[in-house]
Amino acid sequence: MNVNSRSLLAGTMRDVYVAGVGMTDFGKFADRDSKNLADEAVTSALLDGGATPGEIEAAFVGNAVAGLITGQEMIRGQVVLNALGLSGIPIINVENACASGSTGFHLAWQQVATGIHDVVLALGVEKMTHEDKTVSFEAINTAVDLDKRSLMSEALGTGGQDRSFFMDIYASMGRDLMERTGLTQRHLALVAEKAHTHAMKNPRAQYRDSVSVEDVLASREIVWPLTLLMCSPIGDGAAAAILASEDGLRRFSAGENRPRARVLTSVLRSGRLPSDEEQQKSVATAAKQAYEEAGLGPVDVDLAEVHDATAPAEIMLYEDLGFFETEELAAVLVDGKTRITGTLPVNTSGGLLCKGHPIGATGVAQIVELTEQLEGRAGPRQIENATVALAQNGGGWLGDDSAAAVVTILARN
Amino acid sequence: MNVNSRSLLAGTMRDVYVAGVGMTDFGKFADRDSKNLADEAVTSALLDGGATPGEIEAAFVGNAVAGLITGQEMIRGQVVLNALGLSGIPIINVENACASGSTGFHLAWQQVATGIHDVVLALGVEKMTHEDKTVSFEAINTAVDLDKRSLMSEALGTGGQDRSFFMDIYASMGRDLMERTGLTQRHLALVAEKAHTHAMKNPRAQYRDSVSVEDVLASREIVWPLTLLMCSPIGDGAAAAILASEDGLRRFSAGENRPRARVLTSVLRSGRLPSDEEQQKSVATAAKQAYEEAGLGPVDVDLAEVHDATAPAEIMLYEDLGFFETEELAAVLVDGKTRITGTLPVNTSGGLLCKGHPIGATGVAQIVELTEQLEGRAGPRQIENATVALAQNGGGWLGDDSAAAVVTILARN
Repeated sequence: MNVNSRSLLAGTMRDVYVAGVGMTDFGKFADRDSKNLADEAVTSALLDGGATPGEIEAAFVGNAVAGLITGQEMIRGQVVLNALGLSGIPIINVENACASGSTGFHLAWQQVATGIHDVVLALGVEKMTHEDKTVSFEAINTAVDLDKRSLMSEALGTGGQDRSFFMDIYASMGRDLMERTGLTQRHLALVAEKAHTHAMKNPRAQYRDSVSVEDVLASREIVWPLTLLMCSPIGDGAAAAILASEDGLRRFSAGENRPRARVLTSVLRSGRLPSDEEQQKSVATAAKQAYEEAGLGPVDVDLAEVHDATAPAEIMLYEDLGFFETEELAAVLVDGKTRITGTLPVNTSGGLLCKGHPIGATGVAQIVELTEQLEGRAGPRQIENATVALAQNGGGWLGDDSAAAVVTILARN
Repeated sequence: MNVNSRSLLAGTMRDVYVAGVGMTDFGKFADRDSKNLADEAVTSALLDGGATPGEIEAAFVGNAVAGLITGQEMIRGQVVLNALGLSGIPIINVENACASGSTGFHLAWQQVATGIHDVVLALGVEKMTHEDKTVSFEAINTAVDLDKRSLMSEALGTGGQDRSFFMDIYASMGRDLMERTGLTQRHLALVAEKAHTHAMKNPRAQYRDSVSVEDVLASREIVWPLTLLMCSPIGDGAAAAILASEDGLRRFSAGENRPRARVLTSVLRSGRLPSDEEQQKSVATAAKQAYEEAGLGPVDVDLAEVHDATAPAEIMLYEDLGFFETEELAAVLVDGKTRITGTLPVNTSGGLLCKGHPIGATGVAQIVELTEQLEGRAGPRQIENATVALAQNGGGWLGDDSAAAVVTILARN
């Protein structure tokens, strides 16, 4: 039904460009708070575009756990943006678990594409570290239906002192994946090793150390088959992307001569459609719709940032996004097809596993990486001739599917 | 700048209709949770419009304190809507303190008006009561910048066992209002008495008892000049409004022959515009923009639901919304011009003071009341020939202004 209703817009939506991007380093920063992180990300994005705060007409702020970690609820966006002189415009706080950042980006894109505004900011910010780690884990655990938590835990495990409940969920998916495909724990380790190799080239990544497949396998077991290095870490960070129409872009003084990343589409889905007889996962439905709207297919994608909250998640996403068939997966991993040097590089940033995963910031940080790639300024991570890029961000768990799946496709203009 | 950019859309936005509304009673319900409340509101709205959940293409869910009161963060909307079979569509959780509901409504309207969807649900839901009242108050207190809380408290008071910090803020505003206008505490009491009189005609209101001006003045002092009956209560509730384009409306089987409430515009502002030399309050800026976009003025408004979180707030809003001049205020109150029987009835529902104020639900509940009024089915509260109605919802406090101000104008079609 949505696809149909969206067709109303075919040909009427305006081109939307990424006018500026910025982000903080991701990591554990005891001395930085949400304001400080947001300030750096937004200021960098404005500087990147050559614009002042006064050019921003509206802002979406994605955050997931400030209420539980820092106590600041309800007006999180206003609090972090006010310090920058951003006030008076519409500021909208959105929350969609680990997909909070991309949900804000999705709405920002809609506002520019439909002509409501010419320049809109999407900010993702998360202060996740807490002196008591279990506070961070328990905050993450709220991304499931709490009434069903004990039922889920009975089947899957309980989370614990060393992990969020999501690691139990992902471990279960990993075991299913291995059973279904014949992949081994070593195949999963290849994803984590790749993430580390990529992150070594990304100065903003949380973990930039050299790690071998053997190191991944030898690291502490979290829940079988996941080892510590197969799991995304707790971290702090912020990322910002400023979207602009063609008219809006004229207000930006920087980067006139650089190629521009244009948003072809952004699709958001929350769980499975009850009417979908195939009962496809929301990420597959979202990807299908995104390809249709962008007028291209997985074969056209030059690189992607995907939601590798754990190593097996990335492999499942290869299937869900139509990148590879099930029977190809082992060869893809062994041959390194998704490495920077491969045919379809995935998570050149280091991904959630190594760049880090301050949850509300992640969706926008993916856009930052892909924009820099499409504009040819990704430094040692640069993919030659990157023309089409895909971002996929997931959030929450409904028992049988993600609570939010966002797929965004960008292209070099 | 926003007004300019919005003019891009002049003539291109589609008509948006309220296709169905529903809400729960507001009150303190120890045995009801967010799911139960949301279920009743959404089911009622679907029944009101004669539609099934399958017709809803996207949903915005406004909630403010579930994370702090119930523990459920991050995917609040998915959790409450899933039980109804609403899944797979985009579900977006928005938070803007006491304006969370109207923020969701604002975005839902934009999606229908710009052609992204034909049928969108705006749901506001709040479970605020807690066995320990101070938990509820402390949750409300997060709607300020927590870093500035102690500074604000030094100037204004601290909140306490019997009140949220917002009552200190509103009391300070009330004292300023009295000093500036010469209004007395008795004038404030008239607002509370009116709210009670209106709420007696509203079976869904939290307080439906008969209360005199003397009763209001004699009730316990919270912070001078506010007495208990001049303050909106803690409560639970949910409200839902389904918005539809003309095409979308054809999918609704009920109410074909009734007049329809059409959304003329909805404007959201967060704090004061730094570039505004007059430094107008966001609610005044939002109202001015809303009148411009709707092509009418305050004189055209037949009735309004405004954010009377306390009695003096309603009086200040008479000025900010352009309803009355400062020098008229005393006469307006004494003569009952804003009563159901007056020339410009305000808060026919009983308002936040008596209908209640489950904060995330309030903005949508205002729309429910105004829709029923415009459609001529408000029963004993009916305003004859109501043609234009205005809703104003505010949220949070930035030290010098609201963190969110939403003004929506509806008209009978």
